[in-house]
Amino acid sequence: MTEHIVSSFDADLKDLGRKVVEMGGQAERLVADSVAALVKRDAELAQKVIVLDGPVDLLQREIEEKAILTIARRQPLANDLREIVAAMRVANDLERIGDLAKNTAKRVLALTGEFHPQKLVRGVEHMSGLVLEQLKEVLDAYASRNDAAAVEVWKRDGDVDVLYTSLFRELLTYMMEDPRNISLCTHLLFCAKNIERIGDHATNIAETLHYLVTGQILADERPKHDTSSLTSVAFPS
Amino acid sequence: MTEHIVSSFDADLKDLGRKVVEMGGQAERLVADSVAALVKRDAELAQKVIVLDGPVDLLQREIEEKAILTIARRQPLANDLREIVAAMRVANDLERIGDLAKNTAKRVLALTGEFHPQKLVRGVEHMSGLVLEQLKEVLDAYASRNDAAAVEVWKRDGDVDVLYTSLFRELLTYMMEDPRNISLCTHLLFCAKNIERIGDHATNIAETLHYLVTGQILADERPKHDTSSLTSVAFPS
Repeated sequence: MTEHIVSSFDADLKDLGRKVVEMGGQAERLVADSVAALVKRDAELAQKVIVLDGPVDLLQREIEEKAILTIARRQPLANDLREIVAAMRVANDLERIGDLAKNTAKRVLALTGEFHPQKLVRGVEHMSGLVLEQLKEVLDAYASRNDAAAVEVWKRDGDVDVLYTSLFRELLTYMMEDPRNISLCTHLLFCAKNIERIGDHATNIAETLHYLVTGQILADERPKHDTSSLTSVAFPS
Repeated sequence: MTEHIVSSFDADLKDLGRKVVEMGGQAERLVADSVAALVKRDAELAQKVIVLDGPVDLLQREIEEKAILTIARRQPLANDLREIVAAMRVANDLERIGDLAKNTAKRVLALTGEFHPQKLVRGVEHMSGLVLEQLKEVLDAYASRNDAAAVEVWKRDGDVDVLYTSLFRELLTYMMEDPRNISLCTHLLFCAKNIERIGDHATNIAETLHYLVTGQILADERPKHDTSSLTSVAFPS
């Protein structure tokens, strides 16, 4: 293989990595803005999130195409192949994170003008703070190929699930206390679920990074603490 | 290229296609069983769905690995490359369909023993009938490379969204009528959302098949009629 081919292959890899990091920054911003829009009932910001999810989807397609063509053209060996597959997987998770932020933003538009006791939103805000931290850390870890940091994020996946389960109960309780809360709390439940799933995708990214750096697969089953789908709240007597 | 290499490449492609069809059958079964478990409140069947999602996840990994290795080893040209990329994309959608069925099954376990007026489940049952039909048709279309059938499925995506939006309103109304319905209806809302998303994945598969057969991309934005995230039900006075 000539020097020329090797270095243009390296350029392909670098370009892929750069696109993923760029996409990560965009997805992170969508998540932060969608939650800010929810907390501040900011319809304009919500609209912006909905529009800006488009470029994130486009980037995912670009990354997938570039990855496939690079594999087909360069026949990369194991290490480089891992690098390319990891880029595709991370882009896939980021695309879904963007979609989830968009869904939250759409619900903000549905809630405009509704009675909206700030208390009800607190739990969602708190949970999304934690998830955003996880997402930021794992994206930094990806950019710097820091496996230890990724494993830390991965271990903390359970924290979000525990928070989500208790938030699920809390929101159900608000609904039972006052039926006027039902419409709002239903949307908040879906927002909370969106955020919990964003946390899952952050965990996926941690797993992908670990595989990229070490060639090993983190435990096949991550620690799962989200039991909300198993939650049943009795009607208060 | 020798006859030998060509035919073992064909064998790779056929094997990939066969695995995707197998995975499709498994995912379809999980969806049907999860809904049956919900309607009949069958905890045993729900458990089975949860367990049998594991093999679906494994198949997805196998397909991805095989696809990547085939691309790297064979340097396929455009048509064959499309075939391989399509297999990866469809497997990705099927994996998510399996997850969504599993999530519905988990909610069945949460609801065991609860007061459960059969009326409330009717809407979810009806909607999932439609989605299962869509899924079955698109999987048959994939197996027989029938683009026209795939486009038909794609065009009907809006039907599921319309149904989901009206179901969303209906379930919210039941909650407001009687707070004892809140816990059940909340889980049903998530089940309905799972099923609606399964419909989205069926539509994705139709898009992938169209791209595989024609090399063209179906309209970048599919017709979107799910406005439930924009739905706000006023408290009945």
